[in-house]
Amino acid sequence: MKNHYSELSIATHRSFEIIDITGRVRALVSESGIREGMVVLSSLHTTCALCVNEDEKLLAMDMQRFFLGMAAPEADYEHNKLHLRPDIPPDEPENAHAHLISMLLGNSESLAVHAGLPVMGRYQSILLVEVDGPRQRKVAIQVFGE
Amino acid sequence: MKNHYSELSIATHRSFEIIDITGRVRALVSESGIREGMVVLSSLHTTCALCVNEDEKLLAMDMQRFFLGMAAPEADYEHNKLHLRPDIPPDEPENAHAHLISMLLGNSESLAVHAGLPVMGRYQSILLVEVDGPRQRKVAIQVFGE
Amino acid sequence: MKNHYSELSIATHRSFEIIDITGRVRALVSESGIREGMVVLSSLHTTCALCVNEDEKLLAMDMQRFFLGMAAPEADYEHNKLHLRPDIPPDEPENAHAHLISMLLGNSESLAVHAGLPVMGRYQSILLVEVDGPRQRKVAIQVFGE
Repeated sequence: MKNHYSELSIATHRSFEIIDITGRVRALVSESGIREGMVVLSSLHTTCALCVNEDEKLLAMDMQRFFLGMAAPEADYEHNKLHLRPDIPPDEPENAHAHLISMLLGNSESLAVHAGLPVMGRYQSILLVEVDGPRQRKVAIQVFGE
Repeated sequence: MKNHYSELSIATHRSFEIIDITGRVRALVSESGIREGMVVLSSLHTTCALCVNEDEKLLAMDMQRFFLGMAAPEADYEHNKLHLRPDIPPDEPENAHAHLISMLLGNSESLAVHAGLPVMGRYQSILLVEVDGPRQRKVAIQVFGE
Repeated sequence: MKNHYSELSIATHRSFEIIDITGRVRALVSESGIREGMVVLSSLHTTCALCVNEDEKLLAMDMQRFFLGMAAPEADYEHNKLHLRPDIPPDEPENAHAHLISMLLGNSESLAVHAGLPVMGRYQSILLVEVDGPRQRKVAIQVFGE
């Protein structure tokens, strides 16, 4: 049994942004030498999600409109009442909507590894979804198998 | 350590449809001979999700109404402006809503395998949720353990 | 290769409630002696979800308002027409909204285990989200690796 742990560092540049990390994950699986097993990915953040879907520019626009429509940044949230939270840093952002959207999208993904590759369909990509950028983000990746 | 990789083929028959695949997953775990470990399942599609919940006919009607209410098929989506996407096949469907609903439901599930069975509660089933059918669908399943 | 299976029992006390189980999961990983691998957690229920996000009291209020706003308990659901479901116990609750919210949040989480710890970011906690309490709940946890 082998395992291969690593962390991807990803700089995001907009408040809402979708970044395709499929190529980097595939490279890590290949580097691990693991042929059969699985790969677990998780965003190490509470306002940045992971999602497997199509990497298509127009769909990215729909995602932004859809998710920000469900949890509007400017709506009224308790979490954004910073004066009620004594132990926060002075630069704490008002980002309750980003937490809620991250919960909807989910924080982690698991994929089978078969024949040395993460198993994915033709139109699938692994997408990091930044909801409170720009920031420096990290994704933990454990490849596991033999 | 053992692993047992397979793909389920599932034909769907309606545009929105819920198909219980629990029995087929349990059979694969049993076939693998693996007693302790885990099973990772992922839909190989971007408009077809996986979800663990109750397989109940009336709840299936609620799911359809709820999710199609959140992302209505006939709403205005950028991804459905097919003339702006040069590299698509001539039979490309207008299915942005199905991508969004799949993101909400999620693409993969992981379950512990214990005593030769995927661990599930009494009312839980593994459900394939077709959101852009009818189609031929595939689910990748990796059982992993000893 | 080692595995360490266990089930957490958790009593909830309100209809909607968020309970941080990070400490208990960390203790189980430590107890397993596994240094590298992964941990799979799943709620064994259809109206109680798992989610990795921030454990913050005001955000918990936002979560309750947001998710109960999307799927209101008092809305009209087929699943709540108990007279149409012949095979249910006499104390069956009207909880369609709780099923739908659980699907949005998701039923399971997978995390890498590295250096003897589940890998998590500074603000991340593992949260059990009760949506139809109070109840006695169970979470299955498989730690897996070496």
